[in-house]
Amino acid sequence: MKKVRYGMVGGGLGSYIGDVHRHGAMMDDLAVLCAGCFSRHRDKNLETADAWEIPEDRVYANYQEMADKESSREDGIDFVTIATPNSSHYEIAKYFMEKNIHVLCDKPVTMTVEEAEDLKKIADERNLLFAVPYAYTAYPAIRQARQMIEEGVIGKIIYLRAGHPEDWVISSVPEEPSGKLPWRFDPKMAGESLCSADLGTHAEQLVEQFTGLTIKRLLAVFNTWPAYLPLETNVTAFLDLGDGITGELWASQIAIGKECSPFIYVVGSKGSLEWNHETPSILKYTPVNEPTRLLSAGRDYMSKESNSMVRVSAAHHEGYFEAFGNIYRPFCQNLLALKEGKPYEGLPYPSIQEGLNGMKFVHACVESNRLGNVWVDL
Amino acid sequence: MKKVRYGMVGGGLGSYIGDVHRHGAMMDDLAVLCAGCFSRHRDKNLETADAWEIPEDRVYANYQEMADKESSREDGIDFVTIATPNSSHYEIAKYFMEKNIHVLCDKPVTMTVEEAEDLKKIADERNLLFAVPYAYTAYPAIRQARQMIEEGVIGKIIYLRAGHPEDWVISSVPEEPSGKLPWRFDPKMAGESLCSADLGTHAEQLVEQFTGLTIKRLLAVFNTWPAYLPLETNVTAFLDLGDGITGELWASQIAIGKECSPFIYVVGSKGSLEWNHETPSILKYTPVNEPTRLLSAGRDYMSKESNSMVRVSAAHHEGYFEAFGNIYRPFCQNLLALKEGKPYEGLPYPSIQEGLNGMKFVHACVESNRLGNVWVDL
Amino acid sequence: MKKVRYGMVGGGLGSYIGDVHRHGAMMDDLAVLCAGCFSRHRDKNLETADAWEIPEDRVYANYQEMADKESSREDGIDFVTIATPNSSHYEIAKYFMEKNIHVLCDKPVTMTVEEAEDLKKIADERNLLFAVPYAYTAYPAIRQARQMIEEGVIGKIIYLRAGHPEDWVISSVPEEPSGKLPWRFDPKMAGESLCSADLGTHAEQLVEQFTGLTIKRLLAVFNTWPAYLPLETNVTAFLDLGDGITGELWASQIAIGKECSPFIYVVGSKGSLEWNHETPSILKYTPVNEPTRLLSAGRDYMSKESNSMVRVSAAHHEGYFEAFGNIYRPFCQNLLALKEGKPYEGLPYPSIQEGLNGMKFVHACVESNRLGNVWVDL
Amino acid sequence: MKKVRYGMVGGGLGSYIGDVHRHGAMMDDLAVLCAGCFSRHRDKNLETADAWEIPEDRVYANYQEMADKESSREDGIDFVTIATPNSSHYEIAKYFMEKNIHVLCDKPVTMTVEEAEDLKKIADERNLLFAVPYAYTAYPAIRQARQMIEEGVIGKIIYLRAGHPEDWVISSVPEEPSGKLPWRFDPKMAGESLCSADLGTHAEQLVEQFTGLTIKRLLAVFNTWPAYLPLETNVTAFLDLGDGITGELWASQIAIGKECSPFIYVVGSKGSLEWNHETPSILKYTPVNEPTRLLSAGRDYMSKESNSMVRVSAAHHEGYFEAFGNIYRPFCQNLLALKEGKPYEGLPYPSIQEGLNGMKFVHACVESNRLGNVWVDL
Repeated sequence: MKKVRYGMVGGGLGSYIGDVHRHGAMMDDLAVLCAGCFSRHRDKNLETADAWEIPEDRVYANYQEMADKESSREDGIDFVTIATPNSSHYEIAKYFMEKNIHVLCDKPVTMTVEEAEDLKKIADERNLLFAVPYAYTAYPAIRQARQMIEEGVIGKIIYLRAGHPEDWVISSVPEEPSGKLPWRFDPKMAGESLCSADLGTHAEQLVEQFTGLTIKRLLAVFNTWPAYLPLETNVTAFLDLGDGITGELWASQIAIGKECSPFIYVVGSKGSLEWNHETPSILKYTPVNEPTRLLSAGRDYMSKESNSMVRVSAAHHEGYFEAFGNIYRPFCQNLLALKEGKPYEGLPYPSIQEGLNGMKFVHACVESNRLGNVWVDL
Repeated sequence: MKKVRYGMVGGGLGSYIGDVHRHGAMMDDLAVLCAGCFSRHRDKNLETADAWEIPEDRVYANYQEMADKESSREDGIDFVTIATPNSSHYEIAKYFMEKNIHVLCDKPVTMTVEEAEDLKKIADERNLLFAVPYAYTAYPAIRQARQMIEEGVIGKIIYLRAGHPEDWVISSVPEEPSGKLPWRFDPKMAGESLCSADLGTHAEQLVEQFTGLTIKRLLAVFNTWPAYLPLETNVTAFLDLGDGITGELWASQIAIGKECSPFIYVVGSKGSLEWNHETPSILKYTPVNEPTRLLSAGRDYMSKESNSMVRVSAAHHEGYFEAFGNIYRPFCQNLLALKEGKPYEGLPYPSIQEGLNGMKFVHACVESNRLGNVWVDL
Repeated sequence: MKKVRYGMVGGGLGSYIGDVHRHGAMMDDLAVLCAGCFSRHRDKNLETADAWEIPEDRVYANYQEMADKESSREDGIDFVTIATPNSSHYEIAKYFMEKNIHVLCDKPVTMTVEEAEDLKKIADERNLLFAVPYAYTAYPAIRQARQMIEEGVIGKIIYLRAGHPEDWVISSVPEEPSGKLPWRFDPKMAGESLCSADLGTHAEQLVEQFTGLTIKRLLAVFNTWPAYLPLETNVTAFLDLGDGITGELWASQIAIGKECSPFIYVVGSKGSLEWNHETPSILKYTPVNEPTRLLSAGRDYMSKESNSMVRVSAAHHEGYFEAFGNIYRPFCQNLLALKEGKPYEGLPYPSIQEGLNGMKFVHACVESNRLGNVWVDL
Repeated sequence: MKKVRYGMVGGGLGSYIGDVHRHGAMMDDLAVLCAGCFSRHRDKNLETADAWEIPEDRVYANYQEMADKESSREDGIDFVTIATPNSSHYEIAKYFMEKNIHVLCDKPVTMTVEEAEDLKKIADERNLLFAVPYAYTAYPAIRQARQMIEEGVIGKIIYLRAGHPEDWVISSVPEEPSGKLPWRFDPKMAGESLCSADLGTHAEQLVEQFTGLTIKRLLAVFNTWPAYLPLETNVTAFLDLGDGITGELWASQIAIGKECSPFIYVVGSKGSLEWNHETPSILKYTPVNEPTRLLSAGRDYMSKESNSMVRVSAAHHEGYFEAFGNIYRPFCQNLLALKEGKPYEGLPYPSIQEGLNGMKFVHACVESNRLGNVWVDL
């Protein structure tokens, strides 16, 4: 059984997302964590390396050293997972790619559209893989929906609604200013957007992965609460998906009562499909003038592709780690195929193209809102 | 026990809504149907009168005769229920009001904003009552929400989402043109809007009744499906409710899988409230950082006002007839108080002001869409 | 349009169930309330008569006088609705039947099996109609289920679970004794059972109406809480429905969190059906190895019979009053047919046979529990 | 970071449960798989060892050899995971325990009560740990419920209902006999019970873990479908939990529409708690006469103990692997403490005592059904 080797930049103990990556990577035994630069803080870096059993000589003080050394080892890493704050994604990804190391990088992939375009260019030129772990779209029920749409089950798409509401800002940020805010609220670290980048991109990817459509232009309205925050915490956008298809997208960090509730509803001329992260293995399908059907991931009536993403029995629940695994798996399989010079025939996964689409979405939201809620092309 | 007398224009057997009015009116034994002009078709008019036990001399061939004669009888009707197609609401309501007969008229109350303003002016000048039966907002759980909001339970409102999706057009209209369409699809009979007027106004009223806020301006996008229809079947609108409060409103006649699903979600600085017509007696309340609570109409912990709208035990279900009753009851009580020269201290109900708001909403939607999706004041 | 005339015994203002009957009776304009003996208390009797517009000469001080006089009037009542406490049902029903007046009587119809058998005997001998308003089973979705079962859609029934949990006793009765208890808790007035009779019979009828099966024998366990009450407040029973079919039935008056939640789940060799009073217009149908379907009352794909019970559009909600109406309607139609000497071809409704089945069920529960939880034949 | 070493008997590639164990064990980096006897079939054994990177000298042809050799190595395994068919659990567990190797063994732990008692005796005498992975009870919401019950939040428990319905037999076994049945249907391999052992024990443990109560006696009824099967596929049982507390338990392998739906509902004098595996992170809590609250695992208002079982953010979903991890973690922590001679102060986990309780439950079900549905002590 072949495996790929990877390293991690950022994601040290206490960072939450680092361990999520690690679980995603080990979910299907396709990737081995061999090296890392887990933190700028030496102690935390070493402590993480110790916990995760990384040999001392492959724990690095900075990412440049890591890229340099790993790229010159015979058993060097095949890819790097980048789990640092947004502002550093670009330079780190670029540096590793220039050493011909493949990349899996958290979203939003960059701070600007230009940076994302640059990363895509490099990846294309060097034939490097670049995955972006939009995990909420990596559930089997979403793959099922995509196939049903491609097979014409719901006819011509007419309209859709998608969203990603959470309550984490309103639950954790005081109503009045008090002390320093975390990096996510700082435009220098987070970029020009808070909610559109943090959650809006998830909803945008949900639209793309679920339907296969891309957003052509949008019209957005921002809210900011608590009002003293420098970046928006709620965004509502109209979507134009071409061919007369319109939609609405909502992302929120102040949605009390919605803990983490990405959702999508798509209506076509012959039926509708609906999915909600609150019950991620269920896909609601309603043919026009017929009863709603509740499709359940893993059952025999689901597509082979969708069921290939199910590791346990139907209704036995797979969650966030497994969803990360559903991105790591095809990415690693693709990498193995590439290394062996074979064509990749596995499932798709979000790549730098999807990362770039996300950046265009974020920038269009910011521009549309800034210009007084007008249509802006992506 | 005092009762008021009423007549009906339109609503004859087979019209569906006429019988709904009648059940609403008799729900609390406050109104007696005494007269009618139920149909232009003589046979249907008489047949309806017979079924509903209207004495022959109070069955009229046209509404003018009805208004003339009833207004001159000592036991003439106190109010008229108007249940005709939209295009005739204005002239009928006006005619009855000019005979000093109070009015309860289906929504949309008129074809234009100007007509609605005119009706309001007449009602104000003549001190006439004018109710508009927005029945979906007449559930006890909605009154409860309104009081909680007024008492500051969820703090300052920040954002809201409301809608009224149905599937009746896509379920009943063929994808390709075939034969004559019903009056609702004809701009001459229905007015300048199909979905915004038919369902959008329900969502607009849901926002108003639930929160006490009014829409200051909006920005709307229309879809039309099947594409050959002359009027829109789906509308999405951004709402500006003043004081920094924004919102989103969706109404649809093509929402496969949503049979009749008005909903509203309101987030404030201290909590959120959510209601869905699919379980109309349940109000979801989430205080920030606390578990969601499911409030159930009729329970002792609900407000006295809300519980005054409950006729049977908690969880025993009241439906569409009872919701109509929840508009007929305060309207009739108000009318009784007026006749006795007493102040009315009962619950509020949607009046010509709300009817006018609805027309402004419809017109703003049409204008915003026509002008390329720009903000339009109401 | 022909109507029948009826009177009411019990059910005066303040009694709750009287007004439910009245709404049920007027739901489809088939019955007119003409006479009554609404209360033993003269004032309440007259006040009720006044509110409901009963002429003075048809308000009676006792039921005997009412039966005597009404049976000798040419325009006397066709049937009597009995809405008194359980202990008087038998004598009242019998007295009216002996005057050849048809009966609609609340459940449980009697205090003992023998009394119910006697009433059935009288009804059979005199060809009198006798309805028992098991309203929770009178929803269109339940009729749909019954037809699907009869058509073999779910194959051979194997097992079922049904229940009727409420919380009204634990919500209203103090944990320690304090003052006099209402009549429902007094064995002299309520009979040998509290919960089995009050709610268990509803679950028993739900089983019968939904499946067409009858309970052959059962094995029951009682709980009583608060412990000082003389009768049980919770009953769990195993059911033997013959032909290898078993089931479980639960009724409770202490089920905190379940306000009024009758439910049934039936599994057959080819599929299952499930219904819950919390969303009474939805029927869940799962064919083996296929997705669950949510059938919605009133839609075109539902049976003609089921849809004949729907008065408004699909998803527009009908509730408790309408469910009562769904018993009054066929009962009145049957009565009209009988009066005209025509065969009755309408929908079935629960009759004295079902009332008798309910009494047998209650007695079997009491006996099974008393004998140490053994099987007892019905 | 200290880890323990373990080996596995059974669970080779293709067995489904082996990989679940492996994921559970690696979930929190506390256990390393070092040895195994994964299959009787040499090829499968080696193939599994290869996939899971077990060195050749620690892949064994039979469990005796494995126990012998591992117990004499300095770096030998600390515990063995037993993932074989039920009939071999006893002999394998016993053999390893006699070599002083701790055990984690699938349920049902043995074929008879006597065998389970024997294993418990050995574990007690040798001070060996013995875990039984009842994973469905290992969700954070269940720990929360247990603490709330212990703190008296719902008062004195009165009644409960629990179950574990699935549909796997009716979905996969033909209605008429055709060919050889899998080992689970063979009494020689599965023991005296099919459904009670396979799923009933999960429901029984759910009762114990959720409430802290144990079943004193029970009364059970079996169904068998398809009828030619030698063992039951559906069991309904009344429970006596002492102190006047009764309950009902249902387990089914023919519950079409219920894919994997363990549930529990517990009513106490002051409130109720309800949990359903379909949304495993939600705990429903209803105080008497107050609205139902939806408690969500991972939120700040949950107990520290419950939240210690949450690895990702609230509402981000953890599933079956993580639930296994929630048993492996405390088991491994206990083992580490034992090895270091320290007291164990972590969370409890199901041990051989719970395994024994399960066997008593199964035997009581079989006896009660065999004797005609009478009460049988556990």
